[in-house]
Amino acid sequence: MPTYKAPLRDMRFLLKDVFKAEAALSEVPYYTQNETHTADLADQILDEAARFASNVIQPLNMSGDAEGCTVADGVVKTPAGFKEAYKQYAAAGWTALDGDPEYGGQGVPHVIGNAVSEMMIAANIAWSMYPGLSHGAYTALKAYGDDATKNIYLPKLLAGEWTGTMCLTEPHCGTDLGLLRTKAVDNGDGSFSITGTKIFISAGEHDFTDNIVHLVLARIEGAPAGTKGISLFLVPKFNVNADGSLGERNGVVCASLEHKMGIKANATAVLNFDGAKGFLVGQPQKGMQAMFVMMNGARLGTGMQGLGLGEVAYQNALAYAKDRIQMRHEPRMDPAQPADPIIVHADVRRMLLTAKAYNEAARALTLWLSLSIDIEQHHPDAAKREEAADLVALMTPIAKAFMTDNGFTSTVLAQQVFGGHGYIKEWGMEQFVRDARIGQIYEGTNGIQALDLIGRKVLGDGGKKLQKLSGMLQAFIEENEGNEDLAPMLDALGKGAQQLGSLTMVVGQKAMQDQAEANAAAVDYLRYMGHVTYAYLFALMSKAALEGIAAGNDKDGFYKSKLQTAKFYYAKLFPETKALAATIKAGNETLAVDDVVFGIEREVVSA
Amino acid sequence: MPTYKAPLRDMRFLLKDVFKAEAALSEVPYYTQNETHTADLADQILDEAARFASNVIQPLNMSGDAEGCTVADGVVKTPAGFKEAYKQYAAAGWTALDGDPEYGGQGVPHVIGNAVSEMMIAANIAWSMYPGLSHGAYTALKAYGDDATKNIYLPKLLAGEWTGTMCLTEPHCGTDLGLLRTKAVDNGDGSFSITGTKIFISAGEHDFTDNIVHLVLARIEGAPAGTKGISLFLVPKFNVNADGSLGERNGVVCASLEHKMGIKANATAVLNFDGAKGFLVGQPQKGMQAMFVMMNGARLGTGMQGLGLGEVAYQNALAYAKDRIQMRHEPRMDPAQPADPIIVHADVRRMLLTAKAYNEAARALTLWLSLSIDIEQHHPDAAKREEAADLVALMTPIAKAFMTDNGFTSTVLAQQVFGGHGYIKEWGMEQFVRDARIGQIYEGTNGIQALDLIGRKVLGDGGKKLQKLSGMLQAFIEENEGNEDLAPMLDALGKGAQQLGSLTMVVGQKAMQDQAEANAAAVDYLRYMGHVTYAYLFALMSKAALEGIAAGNDKDGFYKSKLQTAKFYYAKLFPETKALAATIKAGNETLAVDDVVFGIEREVVSA
Repeated sequence: MPTYKAPLRDMRFLLKDVFKAEAALSEVPYYTQNETHTADLADQILDEAARFASNVIQPLNMSGDAEGCTVADGVVKTPAGFKEAYKQYAAAGWTALDGDPEYGGQGVPHVIGNAVSEMMIAANIAWSMYPGLSHGAYTALKAYGDDATKNIYLPKLLAGEWTGTMCLTEPHCGTDLGLLRTKAVDNGDGSFSITGTKIFISAGEHDFTDNIVHLVLARIEGAPAGTKGISLFLVPKFNVNADGSLGERNGVVCASLEHKMGIKANATAVLNFDGAKGFLVGQPQKGMQAMFVMMNGARLGTGMQGLGLGEVAYQNALAYAKDRIQMRHEPRMDPAQPADPIIVHADVRRMLLTAKAYNEAARALTLWLSLSIDIEQHHPDAAKREEAADLVALMTPIAKAFMTDNGFTSTVLAQQVFGGHGYIKEWGMEQFVRDARIGQIYEGTNGIQALDLIGRKVLGDGGKKLQKLSGMLQAFIEENEGNEDLAPMLDALGKGAQQLGSLTMVVGQKAMQDQAEANAAAVDYLRYMGHVTYAYLFALMSKAALEGIAAGNDKDGFYKSKLQTAKFYYAKLFPETKALAATIKAGNETLAVDDVVFGIEREVVSA
Repeated sequence: MPTYKAPLRDMRFLLKDVFKAEAALSEVPYYTQNETHTADLADQILDEAARFASNVIQPLNMSGDAEGCTVADGVVKTPAGFKEAYKQYAAAGWTALDGDPEYGGQGVPHVIGNAVSEMMIAANIAWSMYPGLSHGAYTALKAYGDDATKNIYLPKLLAGEWTGTMCLTEPHCGTDLGLLRTKAVDNGDGSFSITGTKIFISAGEHDFTDNIVHLVLARIEGAPAGTKGISLFLVPKFNVNADGSLGERNGVVCASLEHKMGIKANATAVLNFDGAKGFLVGQPQKGMQAMFVMMNGARLGTGMQGLGLGEVAYQNALAYAKDRIQMRHEPRMDPAQPADPIIVHADVRRMLLTAKAYNEAARALTLWLSLSIDIEQHHPDAAKREEAADLVALMTPIAKAFMTDNGFTSTVLAQQVFGGHGYIKEWGMEQFVRDARIGQIYEGTNGIQALDLIGRKVLGDGGKKLQKLSGMLQAFIEENEGNEDLAPMLDALGKGAQQLGSLTMVVGQKAMQDQAEANAAAVDYLRYMGHVTYAYLFALMSKAALEGIAAGNDKDGFYKSKLQTAKFYYAKLFPETKALAATIKAGNETLAVDDVVFGIEREVVSA
C-alpha cells in the first residue's frame, strides 16, 4: 500500500529561502495583527498538518477507492472512516485555517493554507474535496453575500459544521453555462424557488455534516438568455432559521451518484432542485461574476491536485525503484544482490526526475501564487494589490492546466516505474492515475483554460499582464548577470521569454483576422508559457540553493539536489518549447480542414 | 454505450493503393497455391470479421469490464457471453485464419490476419487476448516443437479447441528473466517436473476450452544462472494422451486472479506449478530464443492494441463531437440550435485529428510489417526474406512502444473530447484509457523496447539495419522529386531522416565510452525514429491518395481526407522531433545525478 510523507523540507525551502514569505507578509497588517505571518507559526502548522495527512486520511485512500460512495433514497453513505476523519479535521480547526477571523477563521495566510491543502490532496484526494468545495463556497459567499447571510453561514462553514458545494453543470451544458435551464421564481418574500437538475456536483451529498450549503447558478424567470441572465443562489439542504438552527428539509435531493473512473470516494451527485428555497447571492444576473470568484480559487486548487498526486506517486515510485532489483548496471550498486535496484537505470531516473521536477516547479508556482493572493487581498498598498492581482489572473489558467497535465504525466510515469505491478490495484499506483485524470477535465477543461489564457488574459488586455511578467523575468535575468552558475539557465530562460513574446505577436496578429487562430494555438501556447514560468521558478530556486551552498548550509546535499533537478528540467523538459514553437506557428491551417475529413455534412450560415 | 465500425475503407486503401498486397503476395507460392493472396478473398474476410467484431464481441465490452473474471477453487468464470462468443469465433474458423494449412490452418496471409486482429482488439480487447495469446503459443510451438508435439497440439490450437499462454514473469522478475526460479526436474521419461510460481499470466485460466497449453520458462536443475540457463516447456492443463484425448489434470493451478486497472475481463492469473508434467520445447537452455519468437509477434500484437483502442476511442469521440452542442463558432454551423456542435472548435479538432493521424499511421505500420512478416516467412527469394526480416526486427520495438504510447494518448484525448462525461463509466471512454494503459507496460515495457531498439537493433549491428531503412526513405524521396504536392512532406522527411542518422552517430559515439549514454537516450530516440517512420508512411499514403485524385476516383473525398490528415501530422505532430533532438543530445549528464537527489546511500563496486 502506498505511503505519503509531506515534503516539509521542500515547502520550507520555498517559503523561507525562495519567496521569503514572512518578510513579504510582514507588510500586511491583516496578518501581522494576529501574528499569523511568522515562519515559526507556519512551521508548527505544517508539521501538524503533515501528521494529520499521513496518519489519519492517507490510510483511508485505497479503502475509500474500493468502497466508493453509495446512495439510497437520497441518503449518501461515504466510505468507512471518512466521516470520522472529517470530524477530527474540523475539531482540530483545519476548516477555519485561512478563514477570516471576523467569522471564526484563524486568519492564516493562503500560502500556508495551500501548503496544507497539497498535503491533504496527496494523502487522499477524494476526501480532501469535501472540505475543498466548502472553501470555495465560503469564498464566494464572503465576497458576495449580504451581512445577514455571512453572519449565519460563514461561521458554520469555517467551523466545518456545514459544508458547501458549487452547482453549475447541467446535463446539456458544462462549458457553455449560457445554456443553463435551472430556473428561479421570485417568491416575493426575499426568497426564490429553484427548479432544475444539476450534475457532476462534487461532495454534493454526504453524511459528514448536518447541513450542506449549495451555491447554485440559475436563471430568474424572464431574465435574458445566455450568461448575462444567470444569477447565483444559496440553497441550503436544510432551511436555516434566523438563529442559525436548522428548519425543514429543503427541496433539493440527490437523485443518484455518478460511477467514475476515479475520485470514487467523493460523492459526485446528480441534484434535483424541485422548488427548493434559495436566496440570491450578489446582484441578480451577476451570477457568473460571483461564480468566477469561486472558480478562480477552485482552479488553483485543481492545479494543486496535479501537484499532490504527482508528489505521492513520485514518492512511492522512488521507494519502489530503490527496493526492486532487476538487471545489472556498471558499476554495480550492490554486488551481493543478484541484480541492482532499478533506480540505477537511466530511463528509470528519467521518469523519476520528470515527476520530481514537475512537482517541485508546481509547488513553487502554487506558493508563489498563494502568496500573491495574500497580497492581492490584504496588502495596504493598492498598487501592490493590483500587481499581485494581475499575476494571479494571468497565472491561474496555467496553474490549473499545466499543473494537472504534468501531474497526470507524473502519475503515469510513476506507475510505469512499477512495471506490471503498477497496473495491479493492490500497489495503489493505478489509483493515482485514475484520480489525477479528472483534474484535466473539471473546473473548466484544460482546453478552456488555454482559451482563457490566450483570449482573456493575454490578448484581452493587449498583452499588458504578459508584459509585466516579461519585465519581471527580464529584471531577474539582469540582476543575476555575471552569476556564472546561473548563466546557462538565464540564457535559456531569456531566449524562451523572448520567443514567448514573438509567438504572442504572431498569434495575436493572425487572431485579428480570424479568432480561430488564437483557439488553434491556445493549448500549445499555454504549455509554452507554462514552461517559461517553470524555467523562471527553477532559476529562482537555483539561486536560493546556490546561496545556501555558498553559506555552507548544505551538509545533507538538499541544495545540491535542487540544483541538479533544475539542470535536469532545463536539459530534458524545457526543450518541449522547441516543438511547441513550431506547432503554435503552424496555426489553424491544418485544423480548418474540410469537413470530409470527419465525414460531416453541414450547412454553414454566417451570424 | 460506445459503438465500433471497422475502418474497412482505410484497410483496403492500405492493402490495395499503398502496399499493393496482392501483387506482393503473388510472388509467394505458399499463398498463391491456396489462392489466399487475392484482394477479393481479403475483402470477404474483412467484411465478415467486421460483422463479428461489431455484432458479437463489441456488445460484451462494457459488461465484461463491469463483471470481470472471478476464481473459486482454481476455477475461473469469465464474464457473461464471453465463452459463447469464443465458441462462435472458433466454429467460424477465425482461430485458424493465418495458421499453416498443414495443421488445419487456412493459410491466409498475416497482413489479413492482423487487419482482423485490429478489429477484435478495438471491439473488445480483453476478449481478444484469449485467442491472441493462443496465437503466440502456436507460433512458438510451430517454430520449436518436435513433430509429434506439433501434430497433436497445433491442430487443437488452430481449431480453437484449446488455447495457449506464455508463462514468463515471476513475482521477483519480469524484465530480468535471468533471475527466474521456476525449476524443471528431468523425469527420465522424456518429461520434466515443473515447479514454481508464475504471475501476470494473461488468459492463464478460463472456461472457454477443455484444455490450456502453457508455454513455461524454467531452469533445468543444474543449469547455469542467468538467461543462459533457461529452457522452454510445454505444460498442458490436462495431460494429453498419444491420440490427443485428455488425460489427468496436470499439477498447474490458478491460485488467484489479479485485480487490475483495466482489461478486467481477461483473466490475469497467478499460476502455481507443483511438479506439473512438462515437455521441453526446442533445445535445453535455449528457452529465451524460443520465447523471443513468441514475443516478437506478441510485441506487434501489443502495438496493435494501441491502434485498436485509439481507433474505437476516436470513432466515439468523433460521434460525440458532432452531436454535442456547446458554445458558438463563426460562421455558425447550425443557427437553429442554441449552440454549435463542438467539432467546430479548433482544439476539439486538434484532439480528434491527433488520434486520427496516430491511428492511420499505426495501421499503415502494422500492415507494412505484417506483409513483411509474410515475405520473411515464405518468400522463395532468400535475399527478400532477409530484407524483410531486417525491417521487421528493426521496427518491432517501434511498433510495440510508439503505437501503444500514441494509442494511450489517443484514448486520453478522445476521453477529453467528452468533457466531464468522459470521466463517467456509462460513456465507456474511461475504459478505453484504462485498457490502453497496459500496452505500454507488458510484453517488455516501452523503456525496454527502446533499449532493444537502440542497443540491439541499431547499434548492435553497427547501424546496418538502420542504413537499409534510410536507404529506402532516400530512394522514395528521390523517386518522387519534382512531385510538387509531395515536396513539403519529402523535404521534412528528408531532414528528419538525416537528423536521425546524425543523432545515431552522436549517441553511438558516446555509448562507446559509457553504455548509460545509449540507455539515457533510448526512449527519446525510439520516439524520434517512430516519427520518421510515420512521416514516411504518411508520405506513402499521400502519394497513393494523390494518384487516386488524379485518376478521378475521389468523389466522396476519401483521398482528400488522407492528404489533409497527412498535412496535419506534419504540421502538428512531427515537430515533436525538434524537442526530441534536443533531449537526445542532452544525454545522460543530467540523469547521472548524485544520489543525494534521490536520497540514496549506496556502496558502488566495479564489476
